[in-house]
Amino acid sequence: MQLFYSTNTTENQLILEEEEHRHVLVLRKNVGDLLEVTDGKGSHHKVTILEVKKQQTVCQIDSTNIEPQKQGRYIHLLIAPTKQIDRIEWMFEKLVEMGAINEITFIKTKYTERSNLNISRFQKIAISAIKQSLQFYLPKINQLIDFKTALNEVGKSVTNLIGHCYTGIEKEPLDKIQLSELESVNVWIGPEGDFSEEEVQVAIKLNMKTIDLGKERLRTETAGLKSVMVLKSIV
Amino acid sequence: MQLFYSTNTTENQLILEEEEHRHVLVLRKNVGDLLEVTDGKGSHHKVTILEVKKQQTVCQIDSTNIEPQKQGRYIHLLIAPTKQIDRIEWMFEKLVEMGAINEITFIKTKYTERSNLNISRFQKIAISAIKQSLQFYLPKINQLIDFKTALNEVGKSVTNLIGHCYTGIEKEPLDKIQLSELESVNVWIGPEGDFSEEEVQVAIKLNMKTIDLGKERLRTETAGLKSVMVLKSIV
Repeated sequence: MQLFYSTNTTENQLILEEEEHRHVLVLRKNVGDLLEVTDGKGSHHKVTILEVKKQQTVCQIDSTNIEPQKQGRYIHLLIAPTKQIDRIEWMFEKLVEMGAINEITFIKTKYTERSNLNISRFQKIAISAIKQSLQFYLPKINQLIDFKTALNEVGKSVTNLIGHCYTGIEKEPLDKIQLSELESVNVWIGPEGDFSEEEVQVAIKLNMKTIDLGKERLRTETAGLKSVMVLKSIV
Repeated sequence: MQLFYSTNTTENQLILEEEEHRHVLVLRKNVGDLLEVTDGKGSHHKVTILEVKKQQTVCQIDSTNIEPQKQGRYIHLLIAPTKQIDRIEWMFEKLVEMGAINEITFIKTKYTERSNLNISRFQKIAISAIKQSLQFYLPKINQLIDFKTALNEVGKSVTNLIGHCYTGIEKEPLDKIQLSELESVNVWIGPEGDFSEEEVQVAIKLNMKTIDLGKERLRTETAGLKSVMVLKSIV
């Protein structure tokens, strides 16, 4: 099965553009061929190609089902982007392919080495990953924002877990954290140089729980990967 | 803390060569400086630099501790290498950084798209990953071998789990598999085109258990990553 992506629909028609259109050309699909298409919001369209134009493929929508969303807790990863951006892109691709992540926010902390980020690349990675893995829901992807702005916006809701490497500040092993079965979680992962001690203290004052990801000293993207995967499997 | 790697030791001396020697130069370490070095087999040497030569750094061993090995089941991943080798390299780097994998074997199956593999690159990735994450044990890395040879060599020992995508062949969700606490596991992951149906049937005849990695259609490296991480956390 091949899955295509489009949000460009009218009542009866659906348009495939840019990469999706090129994908049609590469696969030598033509008028009358049947395709399956998602909008990344749960829709599963079955369509028939009406016309393959130069820049777009026009399809007729034959049927639309809403696929059920994957069960499990809602996990929002807030993470400092790595200097080598491909490291965090890989992590994100894998988490999306596994259907393990619901939302990601990139945070600018004291020691974050990037002040800008091309969010559209992450959007493309997510679309490619859900097509690859035959999923129908895209995770939410948020812009790079200041750590303190992020704290104010989401730090007061749901359960917040923050990873750090300071031996002087208490922390609980991630796999020992008590969470109810479908409890939503925000998990915060710092940059290569860790959160600053002050940042961790501010988080603690907001009642965020500090977590220990194990004995190994993990890179940022490995910490992001591990924390989300462990949280996805904890009941 | 910086960790170096060397297996070149005599009773009192230790030599750092090639990348490890270059690392000494980059960090501008000099005679009299103290370093920490592992051999990837549990040794944790504390050494003093005696001489920085053109091609190597000679050190005096001040003390050697044997670090305890990480507890948990022994996990041996047998996996078909991907055509784009960086994908499987990245998976391997992450699994080593997390201390999640004990042994890896690359297998040549009916649909494997590679007939050769540069094992020394994987050795380098493993060394770099244990240094980065401050671990003292390297995983065992085996050459690319035929699936059937691998079956004969390890398929009859311990518990063997094999992933496949055939809907007509029964399989059990990976997280429901019953394993005792420290039970060793061989987990088998096929190439982009999956194991052949015949390969799966041969495995079943050898009493290997077939596993289901979830609803998502996973790439080879994502399946390897997920299966090892889930097995590491199952009691």
